[in-house]
Amino acid sequence: MQATVLYGPGDVRFEEVNDPKIVEPTDAVIRIPATCVCGSDLWPYRGLQPIKGPTPMGHEYCGIVEEVGSAVRSVKPGQFVIGSFATSDNTCPHCLYGYQSSCVSREFMTRAQAPFLRVPNADGTLVARPGVPSDDMVPSLLTTSDVLGTGWFAADAANVKPGSTVVVVGDGAVGLLAVLSASQMGAERIIAMSRHEPRQKLAREFGATDVVTERGDEGVARIKDMTKGIGADSVLECVGTQESMMQAIQATRPGGFVSYVGVPHEVTLEGTQLFFSHVHLHGGPAPVRRYLPDLMDRVLSGKINLGKVFDLVLPLNRVAEGYRAMDERRAIKALLRP
Amino acid sequence: MQATVLYGPGDVRFEEVNDPKIVEPTDAVIRIPATCVCGSDLWPYRGLQPIKGPTPMGHEYCGIVEEVGSAVRSVKPGQFVIGSFATSDNTCPHCLYGYQSSCVSREFMTRAQAPFLRVPNADGTLVARPGVPSDDMVPSLLTTSDVLGTGWFAADAANVKPGSTVVVVGDGAVGLLAVLSASQMGAERIIAMSRHEPRQKLAREFGATDVVTERGDEGVARIKDMTKGIGADSVLECVGTQESMMQAIQATRPGGFVSYVGVPHEVTLEGTQLFFSHVHLHGGPAPVRRYLPDLMDRVLSGKINLGKVFDLVLPLNRVAEGYRAMDERRAIKALLRP
Repeated sequence: MQATVLYGPGDVRFEEVNDPKIVEPTDAVIRIPATCVCGSDLWPYRGLQPIKGPTPMGHEYCGIVEEVGSAVRSVKPGQFVIGSFATSDNTCPHCLYGYQSSCVSREFMTRAQAPFLRVPNADGTLVARPGVPSDDMVPSLLTTSDVLGTGWFAADAANVKPGSTVVVVGDGAVGLLAVLSASQMGAERIIAMSRHEPRQKLAREFGATDVVTERGDEGVARIKDMTKGIGADSVLECVGTQESMMQAIQATRPGGFVSYVGVPHEVTLEGTQLFFSHVHLHGGPAPVRRYLPDLMDRVLSGKINLGKVFDLVLPLNRVAEGYRAMDERRAIKALLRP
Repeated sequence: MQATVLYGPGDVRFEEVNDPKIVEPTDAVIRIPATCVCGSDLWPYRGLQPIKGPTPMGHEYCGIVEEVGSAVRSVKPGQFVIGSFATSDNTCPHCLYGYQSSCVSREFMTRAQAPFLRVPNADGTLVARPGVPSDDMVPSLLTTSDVLGTGWFAADAANVKPGSTVVVVGDGAVGLLAVLSASQMGAERIIAMSRHEPRQKLAREFGATDVVTERGDEGVARIKDMTKGIGADSVLECVGTQESMMQAIQATRPGGFVSYVGVPHEVTLEGTQLFFSHVHLHGGPAPVRRYLPDLMDRVLSGKINLGKVFDLVLPLNRVAEGYRAMDERRAIKALLRP
């Protein structure tokens, strides 16, 4: 088959690779009706995260089970399934504690921008739902694999509750779906920090009540103004830079909650400053598997519709255009159809 | 009166100072039957935290109200009272949120190693209880002002629950009372990290089920061994150094909780490492005022007895000996009687 391989900064190729097959008896192979480009793919694409030689790309997926290994019990060929970007056995102590993205058997998926995909630990990783969803439902369902699951974790890790005042730092797809997640959790006020008009618009559609265009210290001052000098109850950091992290911490009220869900890039936190900020801090790779059944059901029941986050749809073989459009911020997120 | 003033590293003097008096109508002046030296006093005593000229010392206090300002309503002369090391109005949004140590009117107390003390914002800061406690009850009560309140916050901020597996990093007075706090909250297993035999013994008296003498990476490996490779649910960092912070984070299970309650000294946290540790992190100056009524009642009802944490009792005018003994780790905590 042909699939996506990153060769170096800006160099994405769609080229012949080996077909995936069952390697371990716990594997499944799925056929992918849609995959996509993640904001985190842009770090190596931009050369800001080194790669060791040609690297197969893609970690967001849903699909129809083609084949399963001899030990797989919970999914079978023909079923529609979704899994997280991080595989899990769903039985180890970390999984049982709700942190499947720290599973002792965790593997980070990396070959999903392809028509077929091998999924290790299929029983623990994949969640099946009856029937095969209609084609127009697929994009929304696909988001649960990472970008919605991550936005949901951002809201959950920042303790968003009914009535909360929430700030979302970052207007990428994760930030936008963090807005939607906070809205689903009953936040009263959701302030999206964004300076891009189409993203501001989508943020409002997803539930943002306010938009702040200022950044850094000015952004913090604006949030303080808007909250009578108190700061927000929950701030969801969906970028991963030093500036966005400090913006998040400083915009939070003492005793409030900061979550961070993007891999931090050259971020360091100074102990004394963190100490006197008095915030709760929690983040890491989102334990998407914990939320998957609920999120899939929310999408399937029509409770949430978030396909709009894909504002560019391409055939998979034009994947390089998807990277380019996202890199240049012309697209929020590119959907790829094999 | 005579009181305690730090002139420089190792130079504590007990010397004539002005008597405290009512300055603001919201002030109270109290007479102190006992005060003490705090582990945090050792930072400037050791020259590890700069001071600007002669500095009055002491922030842990209880006492009998001598005089109140015209605006004070909730306490009156003759009452026995305790306040936190951080004053609070107990009415601002941060106070109402439970973070009185970030009160908008916060002042850090610093003249309590003295026979008399001015307490600003007396209504919001001081908690009164009926009657005057017997002399032997005073040391236990005094701990609620900071060291017990801080240990309690360490356990609370690290989400200690009935059945939790808890690690306490640091065997100073705060660490020891964090052990006691975790025990009061129903922790099933409490591992004290200590290499000092008298402190190990007291930790066990306060509820520690295990003692680990290893530190750093070896300490972490030992905790992992003791928890079947999982890590602890809650780790209470009661030191404030880079080593102790990293030890705490690394000994915690993914999704577990780290609290830190000592002012960090030259601590920096690297974003990616924190991200993949998957821990919850919360700390800061303990909001002692939140816990004071409950903690005072626990002491007064005899539920907890922690006067033993004072293993050195001195007349106040020999305060310099108290600093010296604690600095040399000959004493856990020095009680001072004016």
